[in-house]
Amino acid sequence: MAAELKGLNEECGVFGIWNDSEAAQRTYFGLHSLQHRGQEGAGIVVRNQEGQLKIHKGKGLLADVFRCPDDLAQLIGPSAIGHVRYGTAGNRGIENIQPLLFHYLQGDVAMAHNGNLTNAVSLRRELEKSGATFQSNSDTEVLMHLIQHQKGPTFIEKLKASLKQIQGGFAYLILTKDALYAALDPNGFRPLVIGKLANGSYVVASETCALDAVGATLVRNVEPGQLVQIDHHGLQISNFTTKTQLSICSMEYIYFARPDSNLYGVNVHLARQRMGQRLAKENPIKVDMVVGVPNSSLSAASGVAEQLGVPNEMGLIKNQYSSRTFIQPTQALREQGVKMKLSALKAVIAGKDVALVDDSIVRGTTSQYIVKMLKNAGAKSVHLMISSPPLKYPCFYGIDIEHTRELMAANYTVSEMCQKIGADSLHFLSLPGLIEAIGLHQDAPNDGLCVAYFDGKYPTPLYDYEKDFEIPKTANDFTLSAMAQVEEK
Amino acid sequence: MAAELKGLNEECGVFGIWNDSEAAQRTYFGLHSLQHRGQEGAGIVVRNQEGQLKIHKGKGLLADVFRCPDDLAQLIGPSAIGHVRYGTAGNRGIENIQPLLFHYLQGDVAMAHNGNLTNAVSLRRELEKSGATFQSNSDTEVLMHLIQHQKGPTFIEKLKASLKQIQGGFAYLILTKDALYAALDPNGFRPLVIGKLANGSYVVASETCALDAVGATLVRNVEPGQLVQIDHHGLQISNFTTKTQLSICSMEYIYFARPDSNLYGVNVHLARQRMGQRLAKENPIKVDMVVGVPNSSLSAASGVAEQLGVPNEMGLIKNQYSSRTFIQPTQALREQGVKMKLSALKAVIAGKDVALVDDSIVRGTTSQYIVKMLKNAGAKSVHLMISSPPLKYPCFYGIDIEHTRELMAANYTVSEMCQKIGADSLHFLSLPGLIEAIGLHQDAPNDGLCVAYFDGKYPTPLYDYEKDFEIPKTANDFTLSAMAQVEEK
Amino acid sequence: MAAELKGLNEECGVFGIWNDSEAAQRTYFGLHSLQHRGQEGAGIVVRNQEGQLKIHKGKGLLADVFRCPDDLAQLIGPSAIGHVRYGTAGNRGIENIQPLLFHYLQGDVAMAHNGNLTNAVSLRRELEKSGATFQSNSDTEVLMHLIQHQKGPTFIEKLKASLKQIQGGFAYLILTKDALYAALDPNGFRPLVIGKLANGSYVVASETCALDAVGATLVRNVEPGQLVQIDHHGLQISNFTTKTQLSICSMEYIYFARPDSNLYGVNVHLARQRMGQRLAKENPIKVDMVVGVPNSSLSAASGVAEQLGVPNEMGLIKNQYSSRTFIQPTQALREQGVKMKLSALKAVIAGKDVALVDDSIVRGTTSQYIVKMLKNAGAKSVHLMISSPPLKYPCFYGIDIEHTRELMAANYTVSEMCQKIGADSLHFLSLPGLIEAIGLHQDAPNDGLCVAYFDGKYPTPLYDYEKDFEIPKTANDFTLSAMAQVEEK
Amino acid sequence: MAAELKGLNEECGVFGIWNDSEAAQRTYFGLHSLQHRGQEGAGIVVRNQEGQLKIHKGKGLLADVFRCPDDLAQLIGPSAIGHVRYGTAGNRGIENIQPLLFHYLQGDVAMAHNGNLTNAVSLRRELEKSGATFQSNSDTEVLMHLIQHQKGPTFIEKLKASLKQIQGGFAYLILTKDALYAALDPNGFRPLVIGKLANGSYVVASETCALDAVGATLVRNVEPGQLVQIDHHGLQISNFTTKTQLSICSMEYIYFARPDSNLYGVNVHLARQRMGQRLAKENPIKVDMVVGVPNSSLSAASGVAEQLGVPNEMGLIKNQYSSRTFIQPTQALREQGVKMKLSALKAVIAGKDVALVDDSIVRGTTSQYIVKMLKNAGAKSVHLMISSPPLKYPCFYGIDIEHTRELMAANYTVSEMCQKIGADSLHFLSLPGLIEAIGLHQDAPNDGLCVAYFDGKYPTPLYDYEKDFEIPKTANDFTLSAMAQVEEK
Repeated sequence: MAAELKGLNEECGVFGIWNDSEAAQRTYFGLHSLQHRGQEGAGIVVRNQEGQLKIHKGKGLLADVFRCPDDLAQLIGPSAIGHVRYGTAGNRGIENIQPLLFHYLQGDVAMAHNGNLTNAVSLRRELEKSGATFQSNSDTEVLMHLIQHQKGPTFIEKLKASLKQIQGGFAYLILTKDALYAALDPNGFRPLVIGKLANGSYVVASETCALDAVGATLVRNVEPGQLVQIDHHGLQISNFTTKTQLSICSMEYIYFARPDSNLYGVNVHLARQRMGQRLAKENPIKVDMVVGVPNSSLSAASGVAEQLGVPNEMGLIKNQYSSRTFIQPTQALREQGVKMKLSALKAVIAGKDVALVDDSIVRGTTSQYIVKMLKNAGAKSVHLMISSPPLKYPCFYGIDIEHTRELMAANYTVSEMCQKIGADSLHFLSLPGLIEAIGLHQDAPNDGLCVAYFDGKYPTPLYDYEKDFEIPKTANDFTLSAMAQVEEK
Repeated sequence: MAAELKGLNEECGVFGIWNDSEAAQRTYFGLHSLQHRGQEGAGIVVRNQEGQLKIHKGKGLLADVFRCPDDLAQLIGPSAIGHVRYGTAGNRGIENIQPLLFHYLQGDVAMAHNGNLTNAVSLRRELEKSGATFQSNSDTEVLMHLIQHQKGPTFIEKLKASLKQIQGGFAYLILTKDALYAALDPNGFRPLVIGKLANGSYVVASETCALDAVGATLVRNVEPGQLVQIDHHGLQISNFTTKTQLSICSMEYIYFARPDSNLYGVNVHLARQRMGQRLAKENPIKVDMVVGVPNSSLSAASGVAEQLGVPNEMGLIKNQYSSRTFIQPTQALREQGVKMKLSALKAVIAGKDVALVDDSIVRGTTSQYIVKMLKNAGAKSVHLMISSPPLKYPCFYGIDIEHTRELMAANYTVSEMCQKIGADSLHFLSLPGLIEAIGLHQDAPNDGLCVAYFDGKYPTPLYDYEKDFEIPKTANDFTLSAMAQVEEK
Repeated sequence: MAAELKGLNEECGVFGIWNDSEAAQRTYFGLHSLQHRGQEGAGIVVRNQEGQLKIHKGKGLLADVFRCPDDLAQLIGPSAIGHVRYGTAGNRGIENIQPLLFHYLQGDVAMAHNGNLTNAVSLRRELEKSGATFQSNSDTEVLMHLIQHQKGPTFIEKLKASLKQIQGGFAYLILTKDALYAALDPNGFRPLVIGKLANGSYVVASETCALDAVGATLVRNVEPGQLVQIDHHGLQISNFTTKTQLSICSMEYIYFARPDSNLYGVNVHLARQRMGQRLAKENPIKVDMVVGVPNSSLSAASGVAEQLGVPNEMGLIKNQYSSRTFIQPTQALREQGVKMKLSALKAVIAGKDVALVDDSIVRGTTSQYIVKMLKNAGAKSVHLMISSPPLKYPCFYGIDIEHTRELMAANYTVSEMCQKIGADSLHFLSLPGLIEAIGLHQDAPNDGLCVAYFDGKYPTPLYDYEKDFEIPKTANDFTLSAMAQVEEK
Repeated sequence: MAAELKGLNEECGVFGIWNDSEAAQRTYFGLHSLQHRGQEGAGIVVRNQEGQLKIHKGKGLLADVFRCPDDLAQLIGPSAIGHVRYGTAGNRGIENIQPLLFHYLQGDVAMAHNGNLTNAVSLRRELEKSGATFQSNSDTEVLMHLIQHQKGPTFIEKLKASLKQIQGGFAYLILTKDALYAALDPNGFRPLVIGKLANGSYVVASETCALDAVGATLVRNVEPGQLVQIDHHGLQISNFTTKTQLSICSMEYIYFARPDSNLYGVNVHLARQRMGQRLAKENPIKVDMVVGVPNSSLSAASGVAEQLGVPNEMGLIKNQYSSRTFIQPTQALREQGVKMKLSALKAVIAGKDVALVDDSIVRGTTSQYIVKMLKNAGAKSVHLMISSPPLKYPCFYGIDIEHTRELMAANYTVSEMCQKIGADSLHFLSLPGLIEAIGLHQDAPNDGLCVAYFDGKYPTPLYDYEKDFEIPKTANDFTLSAMAQVEEK
């Protein structure tokens, strides 16, 4: 739910395949299973037998971009990479839809990227000084220009040298006439896995659910700082840096990834269920039932219900056709418009004390609306339980929140938040509770998780964002009217 | 799930509104909430202040038909009717998309229809003999021709006389320059409700969820044999026949209607939950967990789990972007193609004895596939529990199954079915259990439910279908090869 | 030019073919060559081997309607009819695009129509009283209903009986499971010809240019009052009435038909050339050069030039990409907008006395604009020469002008017109000159031509239009302000 | 005709405007009048008041790219550049559609280009070595990268330095946040003119017809080697090089430019008329009439007719709706397919000795087909008269012919060509005749015309093409089978 209603958005999903007779088709299926990671654009590049690259991409869902059978059928060749994209307001142009395809006299190169570089602006400034010309706003292009500016005999050496220069969170797929490359940042902020088909072909994808979608089995996770090369020699893995330390984005576990995906061996659904259990253990409130916000909070809700010993009820229904709506409601019908996505099940809710489980609070407006919806449906009381800690700090590694002033928890106390949202009580999972519930158990700070959104302790320097970023001291720094403006967004 | 995967399809959803400043917009919202009742076509007709009717309709989801803001904005006027349609193979042409709009010298008339007439062919034969000219294959047109052939001073008198002549299941909305009419068949096979907006405007819709979607409150159900007239005098209800007896389609409760809708005061989600409880009470099997097929069987699954006293787990994930896929998989990728809609959650399933809950079995191929999916995910055993009785007889009142030979339960014993599906055991809800679980408690046979699909006792004569229909005597009447053909469909 | 700039519009073009292995393809080519007869909609119906009919139609040019190869490829079967349509403001809905397809229990029927019925409203009133239900506004549907209401053993007998009842101008193509029919009104107002392919298959089309387009040779014209039947017995021609008298629309010769078409053996281009010669003979003015308005007046211009003995110059250029423009100019840019279609060749025009040749004057606004364009380009004087008589009376047989008040020549004297248009002189071809120039030489009034637009003598009663139509007595009947309103249209 | 039927294609048309309240609208109108220069793609970039650039572009005609009013309306801002493109087979991707838009940290830059660089590959090789990354195959991008790689304090200095490095034919429009620039190559191979609106705003365009289309008057031609800068200071013209010598493409006069355009003061239509006269003077054959191939050869035909003293007849009709056809004919219908564009007027042609006038012969297949069409229409004899010399050498400055082997005149003698085409005689205009007929009279070789296609004497070194290009010695160098392959293309 969060991804669509709150404006917390992962940047992308990527999928690549090498040497398969149905490369474009499987890339389509893989991307389809990753559609939850981005709905504003999609594209596939294939590499044919002669090493030439061909692209088809466009705005909208995969099903919008590949409308005619021909759109896919024309992408002939045994290797491919694909991308689904979430685009922020400023860069929704067709030039930003990925993969990006670059033309060189010695051969074409295509790139697909999930993440956010923290030194992209500095690098870009340097590159432009050296004569680089950018055609998109995306970070993806920075890597390509870096490679081009390297000295070095081979592509892979130039690629490695370039990967050392970029900072932040990134999972790159790169397709050339010779090979398919995959690279993960030194902190492994974004997930990336390698799979294998029964016919021996390798695939690379953002999540394991995409491996399942094409009938591949997991070979291994791409580890922080690794560069994967797949070509006619098979699979080779090397490190472009050894200064690595796992800090995988905890938000992937909290709500980005699909429940059937496993990240570093931890199943997402089960992790969420444990977050729910822990949340309830920390806050053993008395209610008649638990209701989860569909779909992303249903796993957590089942954990809360189990722990509280009350039924986990289907009190909210999500319209399964709401993924595509072009018509915007008029001002007068705005509230009805929101109802297009979600509706309350009165017969279940009426007269009950309800624990409403959601995965997070960003601006608070959605929570406010859902609480109101339940109360209108007759709920006696609504206790809002959030299966993650208060979201106080922006992400710089690939999630689309960069402004502290937009984060409700950065500006209000929990009791102020509760009052504004209109809930009868408000409870968050503690940070230690979150880490323990996920149970990643890697030998790294926070068990290998990035939890900077909650504690403000970023695992890397922030580079270009360093001076922009100021941690708010107290809620008093923010006037209520400033907050009001945000609410109206 | 059933609706999409099995080929059991409701024919339509209808929505109408009279005298509201946002008539087309609200009709859009109402239809959006009824999209589950039909995805192959949609349309809206508005009546402007001068009494003229204007139409916009097309193939696909509502969001495909109303792509540009202009498509809706041009439909100016205070009254409207709309329709979402499921079209069977033979009649998917644009001429069959509804509403149908008829032009007369004295004024236009528009119609939207949910249901199936059992004497349509006979009536059509008679009408054609009298000179009628049909432009669609739909039953809807039959009523319009009947009205035109009536003698009578007023439209409503001709309408009533015509309604007496048609047989079967029908819920009609009719918009003229003077009024909005709604009519329900004498058995009330299809649901139809009246609501009221805060501003006093009346709306009519297939399900109560559409009332919620536009902010209307339920006024009352349209009862069997009633004709509703809404115009500048307000709401008037009369009977076009008094020979009525409620037989609302039990399939609406089992899987067509949305969980948050109430049919004759019975909430659909709660009814399904009770079906699950009763199913488990009748079949108290030992399993580690319950898994429901999303989305339509989740309510029943929760009832089963509660009764069996084991967890209700999210063992199957439905891709929320699968409502629109234009690309068909190649033969070689067919199995991956099916995976686009559903995936199993290995981490939950592996090593467990699972009770898989589904709402019904039509051809059995989908069940076979899902059982296989769970076993591939490592389930120790899969016990298939169906929250309705075996589906043995076709429906003639608006559900798209007309051939006994397509129904697995009409051709095989339960044990044969279980073997073919590959489940470890197979259990159905009993017919008395179903009736009791729904709990309609109306003063009519089967508590007011039509359960002919299960017992072959149709509440009305079958008219044109009478001679086509032969109830199979024994499973031996059907050769295995005949069944095999069906399976391959 | 006239068709696009002036608002004088033929209603349609039709094409039919029986028993050819490329029926839909050839129908597409035939319609493409008839595209000048209608640009607002197009459609094709094929009849497959089993006698079933399938349709594809839509708004716009043929190239818009048949966008994907599949659109045409799916129309499989050996027989077809097609239609290109000009739609007037009031009836541009998809339901009015032709062919119309009607469904009967005993088989489908499709119809395509060019013309206008003068008793359509009366017939429709009668038909509706007898119970007929109309789904379009088009006259086409009237014939179908009439057929349905006939008593008679065979389709052809009912068809003949119906054709006797309709009045006005019509050329109908009708496709059934058994045959392709073509019928022409008793006055032969609209053109219709029969051709034959090398493989023996018959085709029927509005103009001979469509026969050329598909490689067919002319077999014969369809004569007034004839009914053509093409089926597995071959070609059979009979008369549905013997009360016939040829009155083919003179406007077909003046500007509707394509120059390479022959109507009753008279080539259109040569006829126009003779009109030009005669016009110059009647008005032997002194000019430096002749300039024709492209494209429809180029033939006449060559005749004028030849007769006057001065060069025929290309003084006006028509943009060949102007057939499709969706963007309308803003008010401030209206004049530039008109320039999108036509531009003056200054280098040719400057300093010259120019005879500007156009085929007709409807409202006068276009002429006014073109004269201004030439003067802006430096013409010393512009003498407007019209290759037809003043257009004073509306057409009721298939051309889209029904209001006398819109016709400039019905409201002003020639000298008033000249002044308003801004020309230095204005000359029309005389009516006898027109008739002689066309040279049809048929044994019928006006040599077999309908010239009612010029003399107000309609060859048939006007039926439903009788009372609406009032011939203006003098120009004084019309106030200047009324005319001004028209001009602004 | 040539442009569409023969495969001789100009690369592009450009239009720019600075500081006008209707910038995007006027750019649309300007491009519409330049549509004959390219039909495969179009685009417009506007610069808003804040200096930001916004783009809309796509494949197809302008009318396809700007389908919805919104497409144009959203391009808000007082300055704009636009482009219509002909794309060769290899580079039809969306990334090659222009204008190209480049993003820099200090501001966006857009470019539109007409022409071909002869040292693009070398420059690109150098640039790539220095780290440049290309996203399109177009020459346009090379200039942008060069600018980026310059040292220099201001954009204009870097631009000038870059313009000195590129070779070949080019007319560039460049839009930045500060100014609109226009640059023409040192030989002025491609046309480019400056105009002014009544409101004082400047426009720049490929041809004067675009000035007329927006109501602008000609200020002056952009001269070879000039750089035009338009900004809030007004218009400033400087030279980026003084080593200039006019060699405007003679093909512009022969068939590319619109008849109503003037190139260096010479009207295109009148120049073509003089070519026709001279052609007839050089070849005073005896025929009954002259027929020009519409539309590009009609001017020449009128000159031929005048000189020969026989009528100029409309013997060939061009379908005015053939600019857009998506459906390709099947193999069996290929010949009918070609007829979609052109048809012969039998009534004019039959029994006559015809001089068929065309502007050029490229591969010869089209000529062959048209001659056959005339003969099928009954022509007694067909004498093909070409209003330009034999086309023997490829162009490297912006016309899409690069292979000598595709040029019929490079491989056969005139008598062999005549025989292959099937004409009764074949005549070409002499080279001196061409130069004299155009009458450019500039102080430069060939009066200021590039005629290298005819005499192989290129006005500049060929750079990257030097080694690829070999002038055929004799027709015997080419085997007949090689030619046959070309014919089949």
